[in-house]
Amino acid sequence: VAKRLEKFKTTIFTQMSSLAIKHGAINLGQGFPNFDGPEFVKEAAIQAIKDGKNQYARGYGVPDLNSAVAERFKKDTGLVVDPEKEVTVTSGCTEAIAATILGLINPGDEVILFTPFYDSYEATLSMAGAKIKCITLRPPDFSVPIEELKAAITKDTRAILINTPHNPTGKMFTRKELDVIASLCVENDVLVITDEVYDKLAFEADHISMASLPGMYKRTVTLNSLGKTFSLTGWKIGWAIAPPHLIWGVRQAHAFLTFSTSTPMQYAAATALRAPDSYYEELKRDYMAKKAILVEGLEAVGFVVYPSSGTYFVVVDHTPFGLDNDIAFCEYLIKEVGVVAIPTSVFYLNPEEGKNLVRFTFCKDENTLRSAVERMKQKL
Amino acid sequence: VAKRLEKFKTTIFTQMSSLAIKHGAINLGQGFPNFDGPEFVKEAAIQAIKDGKNQYARGYGVPDLNSAVAERFKKDTGLVVDPEKEVTVTSGCTEAIAATILGLINPGDEVILFTPFYDSYEATLSMAGAKIKCITLRPPDFSVPIEELKAAITKDTRAILINTPHNPTGKMFTRKELDVIASLCVENDVLVITDEVYDKLAFEADHISMASLPGMYKRTVTLNSLGKTFSLTGWKIGWAIAPPHLIWGVRQAHAFLTFSTSTPMQYAAATALRAPDSYYEELKRDYMAKKAILVEGLEAVGFVVYPSSGTYFVVVDHTPFGLDNDIAFCEYLIKEVGVVAIPTSVFYLNPEEGKNLVRFTFCKDENTLRSAVERMKQKL
Ligand SMILES: CSCCC(=O)C(=O)O
Ligand SMILES: CSCCC(=O)C(=O)O
Repeated sequence: VAKRLEKFKTTIFTQMSSLAIKHGAINLGQGFPNFDGPEFVKEAAIQAIKDGKNQYARGYGVPDLNSAVAERFKKDTGLVVDPEKEVTVTSGCTEAIAATILGLINPGDEVILFTPFYDSYEATLSMAGAKIKCITLRPPDFSVPIEELKAAITKDTRAILINTPHNPTGKMFTRKELDVIASLCVENDVLVITDEVYDKLAFEADHISMASLPGMYKRTVTLNSLGKTFSLTGWKIGWAIAPPHLIWGVRQAHAFLTFSTSTPMQYAAATALRAPDSYYEELKRDYMAKKAILVEGLEAVGFVVYPSSGTYFVVVDHTPFGLDNDIAFCEYLIKEVGVVAIPTSVFYLNPEEGKNLVRFTFCKDENTLRSAVERMKQKL
Repeated sequence: VAKRLEKFKTTIFTQMSSLAIKHGAINLGQGFPNFDGPEFVKEAAIQAIKDGKNQYARGYGVPDLNSAVAERFKKDTGLVVDPEKEVTVTSGCTEAIAATILGLINPGDEVILFTPFYDSYEATLSMAGAKIKCITLRPPDFSVPIEELKAAITKDTRAILINTPHNPTGKMFTRKELDVIASLCVENDVLVITDEVYDKLAFEADHISMASLPGMYKRTVTLNSLGKTFSLTGWKIGWAIAPPHLIWGVRQAHAFLTFSTSTPMQYAAATALRAPDSYYEELKRDYMAKKAILVEGLEAVGFVVYPSSGTYFVVVDHTPFGLDNDIAFCEYLIKEVGVVAIPTSVFYLNPEEGKNLVRFTFCKDENTLRSAVERMKQKL
């Protein structure tokens, strides 16, 4: 294995999903729904396959999807972008992250991350030879330590990577936090790469896109995907939105990482993104009900549950149960209780910082959530 | 744009396919069929979508596709590989190339390429910081200059990248050439990365997989995909086959480039790979008929046509028509004749070497091929 990847292990999601199958445990680990995506989107994919939309798509996206992405972005943020020059379709947001980082970050560039983080950020920054600086978001509210952030910025800082709503904590960056980050970026000529795949799962306040802040569009790459919003995580359709001078780098990396993305799925994604508002409202209502079941259950079981205001994840402190660390706790939980959660230490540069925290997902049907809570009540 | 990608332009395939649309030209440029894939494969994808196979696949492939890949490889090469430990499914062969190179090649490693080459090889090697050494395959037969190859190998040579049947020339590496390369690799402890996406389009002799040569499996990464064999280039399902110590690097890079590949398409790919022999025989028969139409036509038009024994491409010398170079010729061909071909100079480190050659594809229905020939007869 090449040095750039030496330190990385099998991703925790793959590990935990395999263990779930092996032990017949209820999988509240990796974030994929155990219910299906909407019929109208599946129907659109089937129609595209039948209609022979089965050859290479244009590298940066089928025109109709580029347009649908731009329309959606306008609805969400008020920003008007050129679908042909400012949108690139990728094979899921994971590829959008890789293409953005490999397309824009040079070896030695400093990039600021907030821990805990989705593991691919660190791995792709390592592939790009970037220097990573981490700012830790701490419970209970995981707020941004502004002074630490200011101190971390140097003349070599090329980008700040944010993720809001935030996986794994469920934190949403507040307007005040985003404002501070934005003005630091403007002052220091720093880019923002913002992963907003959970934007439609914002339960308490509206999601705010970094790109919509004054002066920020021209220095922001906004990443999003179909999977979470349409319960079709396996379709792997993502995209990047950025001004032409930035999207160019993303497109170039994308052209050589995957060239293009599944054509029929792109047509279906265009249909999906044009869903009526009622679709998004219902999705949110459903997830709020699921969240209530899981959060109340976890509290009743005896966890310290940290508030999650977005995503389909919630983070808890497992220490009331007396196990050494998050990995030991998750092992016990799988083997003795029959429930899978995700240890969070893998989302920190310094694993020690995550040792009290584990993440549960509530992207499962209500009965599954209730059964998982029941198992924990009986056996923890 | 990051330095690693600075020198690359919009891929020639994207450029030429856009021009084809703009000028209403017949597109014999980018290699995608203008006919559809087989019904039984499309049906399998539709069934998978209906059956709710729509969430994240296992990162390295849905078990059924890993098995189907191993079964197919055994049929084709006689080699028995463990589908769980030696196969990784990727988002097309382009991603398999990127994951192999980023997963196994360190900065400063020397990698030997044969020119002309598919452009993503150079770009991903550049992303990995590799040193590229090129050996040029020259018309009329594009045979491997053995002495040059020997001289190119040093103690820093990490890998040789081959592509057989070969895009763009249609050359198939002969057993003798493969034997020599294999013994050089064994002697000098060098890996082979072999792109075999056109293996089922071998018209004159059987395709030979490098991995099947004595002593080679353990040092070979074999790459292949669904698109060319099943006329479904837009589905973007590819894979890598290699022994565990090499596949590990590929998997790690893949995990962070795309994480996983479209789930329903993977189920359909498994069905496809289990097609009866008659499917493959018919495919070859159809392509031989198409090839005859195009080759005879190009000769009648007045090109020097170089023999193509595999792939769905044929390379010609355009100089009888008096234009300066391949790019000027292709521009003339699009604008004045209404036919798109691919200039080959982009497939060389030194563009001069390709200036007499352009590539045509015959992955189009017979009427389209005849119309293209007709246009050239009338207007060239
Ligand atoms: C490929 S796993 C992607 C992210 C996610 O779903 C998770 O954090 O569980
Ligand atoms: C993404 S284009 C892939 C290769 C091909 O089809 C071509 O060489 O035309």
